[in-house]
Amino acid sequence: MAKYAKIPEATIRRLSNYLKCLGDLETKNEKVASSALIATMCNVNAAQVRKDFAYFGEFGIRGMGYNVKELKKHIKEILGINREWRIAVIGIGNLGSALLVYKDFLKQNYKIVAAFDINPEKVIGHISERVGKPVEILHMDRLKEVVKVRNVEIGIITTPPLVAQQVADQLIDANVKGILNLSPATVRTPENVKLRNLFFTSALDNLVYYLTN
Amino acid sequence: MAKYAKIPEATIRRLSNYLKCLGDLETKNEKVASSALIATMCNVNAAQVRKDFAYFGEFGIRGMGYNVKELKKHIKEILGINREWRIAVIGIGNLGSALLVYKDFLKQNYKIVAAFDINPEKVIGHISERVGKPVEILHMDRLKEVVKVRNVEIGIITTPPLVAQQVADQLIDANVKGILNLSPATVRTPENVKLRNLFFTSALDNLVYYLTN
Repeated sequence: MAKYAKIPEATIRRLSNYLKCLGDLETKNEKVASSALIATMCNVNAAQVRKDFAYFGEFGIRGMGYNVKELKKHIKEILGINREWRIAVIGIGNLGSALLVYKDFLKQNYKIVAAFDINPEKVIGHISERVGKPVEILHMDRLKEVVKVRNVEIGIITTPPLVAQQVADQLIDANVKGILNLSPATVRTPENVKLRNLFFTSALDNLVYYLTN
Repeated sequence: MAKYAKIPEATIRRLSNYLKCLGDLETKNEKVASSALIATMCNVNAAQVRKDFAYFGEFGIRGMGYNVKELKKHIKEILGINREWRIAVIGIGNLGSALLVYKDFLKQNYKIVAAFDINPEKVIGHISERVGKPVEILHMDRLKEVVKVRNVEIGIITTPPLVAQQVADQLIDANVKGILNLSPATVRTPENVKLRNLFFTSALDNLVYYLTN
């Protein structure tokens, strides 16, 4: 996708946010949205919205606004989520359980096709009691085999921090393409395995910065 | 803090990430860190690290690296987390429960001082069984009163999406300063109440963009 080169990181982040808002608009059967409306919904200013969309050419019709469905499709294409991504979740505690029933994943083409824990028996009781059994919980020992058979491309780490790197290494060894680390420990990956760390504290840090400054 | 005006949003995000890495270094008793080491730990390049730190004046000593403890203190000051922030969590399902026992919050001066649910009795059984009872779960009806008495400044929303805006409105009415929304629904706040939405799908979108492009 060379035509979309050099998009600033912050724009990429906002695209994801816009997509979320466009999804909300679609749910409400809105067909057309102005940059002002999108801006209000996404907590940015309208000029920023127009500037962000300008990176990808002309989406909108001047004075008319943007076609919600078209714009959504276009952003999905840019982000690369215009196809299904197969995901494994590792560590089925509170957070892992929350992800297994997070309905927005499937809406966005993210499909959790495997879940692993060091103690699957214990987890199964907990899961079936609390949220049903959305996906079979397997023992960590089966990670490599199952990642291959089920074509898992992304692993989400929701283990305790002390074992996060070890799990990342197992995912790397199993040839996943990307890792989303939600455990409160930084992990490292080689260059060919993309990594995103998402810490709850970072979201709070960001909020607090804007509260303070 | 006028001296730190005009810091790019992306730098603010990375500061939080650097802080996390510096914490890890401190745990390992490392006193000094080079920009190269910080860069490797944080998955950015060393030039970016130096550029980011340059926004705040000279932290490092040329050829020596950065004093871990000093740098950490400085970043905390910039972000505004050099003092305690009092937090309430609303909606104690899987995700809310995960936050109540998330150890990094307290390390970072984030103190969860209240937790609310529409059905506290049900939650208390679940919580005490699974994670102990880290903070008393109160009924939503008591939100406004308790926020005032316990000086809550930030509310974290972990409810189902359908009630997220309603909960946000209650938090606004209770005079919190900021809201972190973790429910998969966009919410809106007036200008005087800062808002951050954190969607798991956005983190995946970002990962997938870099996997695709």
